[in-house]
Amino acid sequence: MTICYINGKYMPKIESKISIEDRGLNFSDGIYEVIRFKNKKLLNFEDHQIRLERSLHEIKINFPFASKKSVKIIISNLLKINSYENGFVYLQITRGTATRNHLFPKFSKPNVILSLYPEPNLSNLSKGVSIILTDDMRWKRCDIKSVSLLPNVLGKQFAHENGCYESWQMDKEQYITEGTTSNAFIVSGAGKIKTHPLNNKILGGVTRNTLLRVAKKKKIRIEEKAFSLKELINCEEAFLTSTTVGVLPVIKINNKKIKSGKIGNKTKILIEIYNEFLKNQLI
Amino acid sequence: MTICYINGKYMPKIESKISIEDRGLNFSDGIYEVIRFKNKKLLNFEDHQIRLERSLHEIKINFPFASKKSVKIIISNLLKINSYENGFVYLQITRGTATRNHLFPKFSKPNVILSLYPEPNLSNLSKGVSIILTDDMRWKRCDIKSVSLLPNVLGKQFAHENGCYESWQMDKEQYITEGTTSNAFIVSGAGKIKTHPLNNKILGGVTRNTLLRVAKKKKIRIEEKAFSLKELINCEEAFLTSTTVGVLPVIKINNKKIKSGKIGNKTKILIEIYNEFLKNQLI
Repeated sequence: MTICYINGKYMPKIESKISIEDRGLNFSDGIYEVIRFKNKKLLNFEDHQIRLERSLHEIKINFPFASKKSVKIIISNLLKINSYENGFVYLQITRGTATRNHLFPKFSKPNVILSLYPEPNLSNLSKGVSIILTDDMRWKRCDIKSVSLLPNVLGKQFAHENGCYESWQMDKEQYITEGTTSNAFIVSGAGKIKTHPLNNKILGGVTRNTLLRVAKKKKIRIEEKAFSLKELINCEEAFLTSTTVGVLPVIKINNKKIKSGKIGNKTKILIEIYNEFLKNQLI
Repeated sequence: MTICYINGKYMPKIESKISIEDRGLNFSDGIYEVIRFKNKKLLNFEDHQIRLERSLHEIKINFPFASKKSVKIIISNLLKINSYENGFVYLQITRGTATRNHLFPKFSKPNVILSLYPEPNLSNLSKGVSIILTDDMRWKRCDIKSVSLLPNVLGKQFAHENGCYESWQMDKEQYITEGTTSNAFIVSGAGKIKTHPLNNKILGGVTRNTLLRVAKKKKIRIEEKAFSLKELINCEEAFLTSTTVGVLPVIKINNKKIKSGKIGNKTKILIEIYNEFLKNQLI
């Protein structure tokens, strides 16, 4: 039985319910974070907390906790109460419960929901995944980690129905923005490692940003520069990053193998240094 | 006390709750309708039902009712149980409750939520409203009446904070698409009545479509052709339509009066014939 947290109370997931007038439910008027834990220790927590505060700020929801430390205290409690050793914390904050009206309610308080999920089995992914290309259908503020995720859901499902792990989305000019649940990277024909720069077209993924930092320390240059469909087709290697999967090799694009269809050398190195970085957080 | 409907059960609104793993809440993976009733009679019901079925189809949620008639039966029950004479039915259908994963769940059933709202006081609007122009930030499938409404919420709030009733959204080419909660119309300098055509950039508003039909019967031509910012600035009259407000005159754009700042003659005629049409449904 999983114990969840809703607005100050800890309760079994089966009893964890929210009003049908919650603005997250009616308007996708809320934000979220997914934070990985290993051996009951949180990974990259500070980055998630910073992004959480930024998302709230961008859509003008007041920080709903007593203090900055509260988030970590609640999560620590959940990790103590629940039995999972490894998994994910899901945290969602909505603008609250109010009679349906697009305008911000004057008196409602945010609804705060936290839950835990066990680690999924990802072993079948580590040999490399296939991706499919789709048009980026999302709104113009993808930098906000909001629950306005219907286009992501439809894109991910489309990939799945076509035998792929993920959709990589393209803007009008045929530049790859990011995946529906991950950030996209290539090693270009010229040997450059590239990923879309941080702007309103992508979410600043915590794993993306962390990988950039640890790579820099190891003197590996990752350029924050959008790559085109043409560059992708002619790339040497490709990979994706997300909190759920870490750094994951991509070996097929639109059903066509990248080079020999094996995990590239630069990808291998980056997976290694990222996993090493995670391990160091657990010491 | 309002009685609501959730998944086959009628219950007080205060007890009407949904799982924190509802996909509407976590992913805005759901659709909705708002249907007006007067003297406990539904207005334009068939159009709402058709659009509901289309929205479900477009995002691949199975029609969750026993039969096509079920929707009307549930609403009739709610109208009987509850005391409101005039107001709105809110109907939301999500893809169901499932462990968080972007992919469609294999075994979950849709969650069906219905509630009633009393008619708001709109008398202060009938003299005409002010609108403000904003960039259209939404996704590329605005034709689906999904709950992925965060950009609409932010746009509506922006209007409110600037003393306006509504934001009219502009695409990249500076053509007006629609409002955040309404469709946009002008009477151009050349005397033509124009509104954006039905495509992925706008929601096919029931009031919009109904007005087009009743105007046609009265030999009044409304062109389904996008109008530009320039045409808007030089227009003779402007108005908007929605289920909540019907046909509403617009008298100011970006804080500047349209012509004399009074309700235009063509707008008056359209309000009259639309209200007459509604009245006939109540006989």
